[in-house]
Amino acid sequence: MKIKFLHITGIFFIFATALLYTNPLEGQSEKDALYVKEIYDFTLADGSCYKWLEYLTTEIGGRLAGSDNSMKAVDYTHQLMDSLGLDTVYRQSCMVPKWTRGKKEVVKITNAPNGELPLNALALGNSIGTGDKGVTAEVIEVFSIDTLKLLGEKYLKDKIVFFNRPMDPTQLRTFNAYGGAVDQRVFGATTAAPFGAKAVLVRSLTTLTDDNPHTGVNVYRDENPTIPALAISTIAADLLSELLKEQKVEIYIENHSKNHDPVLSYNVIGEIRGSEFPDEIILVGGHLDSWDVGGGAHDDGAGCVHSMQVFETLRAMDYKPKHTLRCVMFMNEENGLGGGLEYARASNEKSEYHLAAIESDAGGFTPRGFSCDAEAEIFATFYKGLNNFLPILERYDLSLVKGGGGADINPLKSQKGLLIGFRPDSQRYFDYHHTATDVIGAVNERELKLGAAAITSLVYLIDTYGLNR
Amino acid sequence: MKIKFLHITGIFFIFATALLYTNPLEGQSEKDALYVKEIYDFTLADGSCYKWLEYLTTEIGGRLAGSDNSMKAVDYTHQLMDSLGLDTVYRQSCMVPKWTRGKKEVVKITNAPNGELPLNALALGNSIGTGDKGVTAEVIEVFSIDTLKLLGEKYLKDKIVFFNRPMDPTQLRTFNAYGGAVDQRVFGATTAAPFGAKAVLVRSLTTLTDDNPHTGVNVYRDENPTIPALAISTIAADLLSELLKEQKVEIYIENHSKNHDPVLSYNVIGEIRGSEFPDEIILVGGHLDSWDVGGGAHDDGAGCVHSMQVFETLRAMDYKPKHTLRCVMFMNEENGLGGGLEYARASNEKSEYHLAAIESDAGGFTPRGFSCDAEAEIFATFYKGLNNFLPILERYDLSLVKGGGGADINPLKSQKGLLIGFRPDSQRYFDYHHTATDVIGAVNERELKLGAAAITSLVYLIDTYGLNR
Repeated sequence: MKIKFLHITGIFFIFATALLYTNPLEGQSEKDALYVKEIYDFTLADGSCYKWLEYLTTEIGGRLAGSDNSMKAVDYTHQLMDSLGLDTVYRQSCMVPKWTRGKKEVVKITNAPNGELPLNALALGNSIGTGDKGVTAEVIEVFSIDTLKLLGEKYLKDKIVFFNRPMDPTQLRTFNAYGGAVDQRVFGATTAAPFGAKAVLVRSLTTLTDDNPHTGVNVYRDENPTIPALAISTIAADLLSELLKEQKVEIYIENHSKNHDPVLSYNVIGEIRGSEFPDEIILVGGHLDSWDVGGGAHDDGAGCVHSMQVFETLRAMDYKPKHTLRCVMFMNEENGLGGGLEYARASNEKSEYHLAAIESDAGGFTPRGFSCDAEAEIFATFYKGLNNFLPILERYDLSLVKGGGGADINPLKSQKGLLIGFRPDSQRYFDYHHTATDVIGAVNERELKLGAAAITSLVYLIDTYGLNR
Repeated sequence: MKIKFLHITGIFFIFATALLYTNPLEGQSEKDALYVKEIYDFTLADGSCYKWLEYLTTEIGGRLAGSDNSMKAVDYTHQLMDSLGLDTVYRQSCMVPKWTRGKKEVVKITNAPNGELPLNALALGNSIGTGDKGVTAEVIEVFSIDTLKLLGEKYLKDKIVFFNRPMDPTQLRTFNAYGGAVDQRVFGATTAAPFGAKAVLVRSLTTLTDDNPHTGVNVYRDENPTIPALAISTIAADLLSELLKEQKVEIYIENHSKNHDPVLSYNVIGEIRGSEFPDEIILVGGHLDSWDVGGGAHDDGAGCVHSMQVFETLRAMDYKPKHTLRCVMFMNEENGLGGGLEYARASNEKSEYHLAAIESDAGGFTPRGFSCDAEAEIFATFYKGLNNFLPILERYDLSLVKGGGGADINPLKSQKGLLIGFRPDSQRYFDYHHTATDVIGAVNERELKLGAAAITSLVYLIDTYGLNR
């Protein structure tokens, strides 16, 4: 296209709401709009977040909790935060599980029409290994855990169970489609094991049809036996499913994953002490760990650099916060939540109060807004405060919806503050989620920076006006 | 991230507006919401638009008006529309300029510190060629057409003028940043020529820093002399600008572009006749031509397949329109608007009335909504109709704003209907615009399909309720 859309004059249909009650920002609002514009200008023109993400994903790379890379990421972000002019930067110890993938997985159909046929696979997190001899067994395809239970030992004993329910492509929000399929990956193995299944294969959780397997956490229930659990690509899953319509299929699986003793790791925390309400904390964070494959660019390098960008930007603007602003790189979100749980435990022990905790853990895509969560009885007290911010947020195409905050900050809910999840566009997230293609090239610099600017703006508004004053 | 955002319960802050007046959709609205859901479901699960775009961009490729490829695109889309069960499909003749790029452009600094230094360049559309001997001259850097005029012949005679004002990265909407820089590309050469400049180089119109030059239209004013006009990549522009701070720079330009006599080409048009209001037309269209480099995937293959997807979807749902629905593949948007002008001329000649014309020409990204444009005195009559649709559109994160419709449909404004521009997310558009990377790999299948579903839903709502009844 040529020269069009040059005269968009702003959203004009949907602004009536904010006029229905007195807005304490009134009069202030032009000053705030200018300040928010400065936040966007600095972030878009001079923000370092993309450069940081480039380093984190390429110089360090995948960084599963407990790995050497995760410690490099701790060092790197600690050093970065040291350069951002915060009052304090420190590490908070936490214990995390240690799991290693071992050498490349082998999954192959042994009796395909033309002989052996390899399938692209990745062991799921926490999966045990098969040992050098591997596991060979006939495959049975199932589409739900409920079906699995109905089939029982008669059909499952000594089989490899193949979970093949796809993510629903008709869901507008891909996280809903993910939520509708992820039980197979998380609980498939531990549910199949008591029936005598020898291993499970899970269709990768993506709406793409491609050959990249997507890993992710697998959870063994303590009381159940453990069996190997691997994801295969959606192309492999479609192929296997087709072949099963024609014949009995036997598969060989070999993986060398291993669970080790838990190890010491760290959250990285920095803060600026508030001038008026130092005991009310506004937290911004992401999780520093990622899966071992890929570079953990969208999940969740983006959230980490978003969070640090907030502080680079506010410092560049010489902003002095009223509340204590805290930046947290959580460790071990992917396979244990060791960091998030320890952060909340220590915070509760010190009787801290998080007025607001914002987590960015949905990728570095164009921002759509924020989802807000709090205990029911106090949500109403925040509602009005949030509505006050809406006219400014809407200028940047940001909405506020009711919804979850984030896995790492959820344990803070008992402090009765507001949990806030950053909501970027979700359409491409599961193209890259937990797979080898979640690298810097999958992140658009402008989209990443806009996310950081959106979060910074919300931090500014909450800090300036509180949520319930 | 793991399992989050599963309980988003819908936008809850901004819905008060629609309750302020009687909505004729009330009661109907659940039926409509279900119908729109079916539109989305079909498009996301079974829509062919991505497959069509793959063919258009890879099997045919770049398709400048007047080229052989543009005729292949006419044939292909005519044949496609024939398969969509429309009442009629036909071609509408129009004359279009014919411009050829010729063999690869050469732009090089002749006196760089280490000798010759080539710069990545593309001739701009309509540019004349230099001939085999090329043009060699000293370079003068300018940042605006106003400065150029102030400099005048004294500084410009026999020089190569280098326009280097970048797109403003702080603009939230990239089309605004484009609008703020595009005058250099369109009018740079024709403004510099009367002062005796020998050629112009223009910084590519993108916020990316990379080595892909972006072409686009250059317009010569009839009364002025013509000189060659080329774009250089943003990396080349930065390098050239740096060098100019150190020394005088001489550049050699050679390009073999050529303007030929206008040739016959076609819009491709299909329609379903309306059952109740056959004389009120709802048009959906994009432009079939693209620049010759790249595959014209976002610009504007996306708009073409969006438009055809509307008809595939409505047919799959066995929808019988009340108004006449028309699908138009416009020819020659990029360098002359021959198709759009002829379409309006012929339509006016037949005294047709377009109740609504929707153009998709801003790429195949996640939809944000629509911009609406009409003659001032009748806009108010459409305003209420549009507001009626908002609650349903907002469920799909679609907003309505005031703004332009699109270059191809603008000539229809005198018919006093509503012009509507489809507005997808704009952040990545100028990464690919008019350059070799605008290929199918730059388009995300879900994002493309969501665009088609959004447009189809709007067509359904306008057809069902009209705009001013």
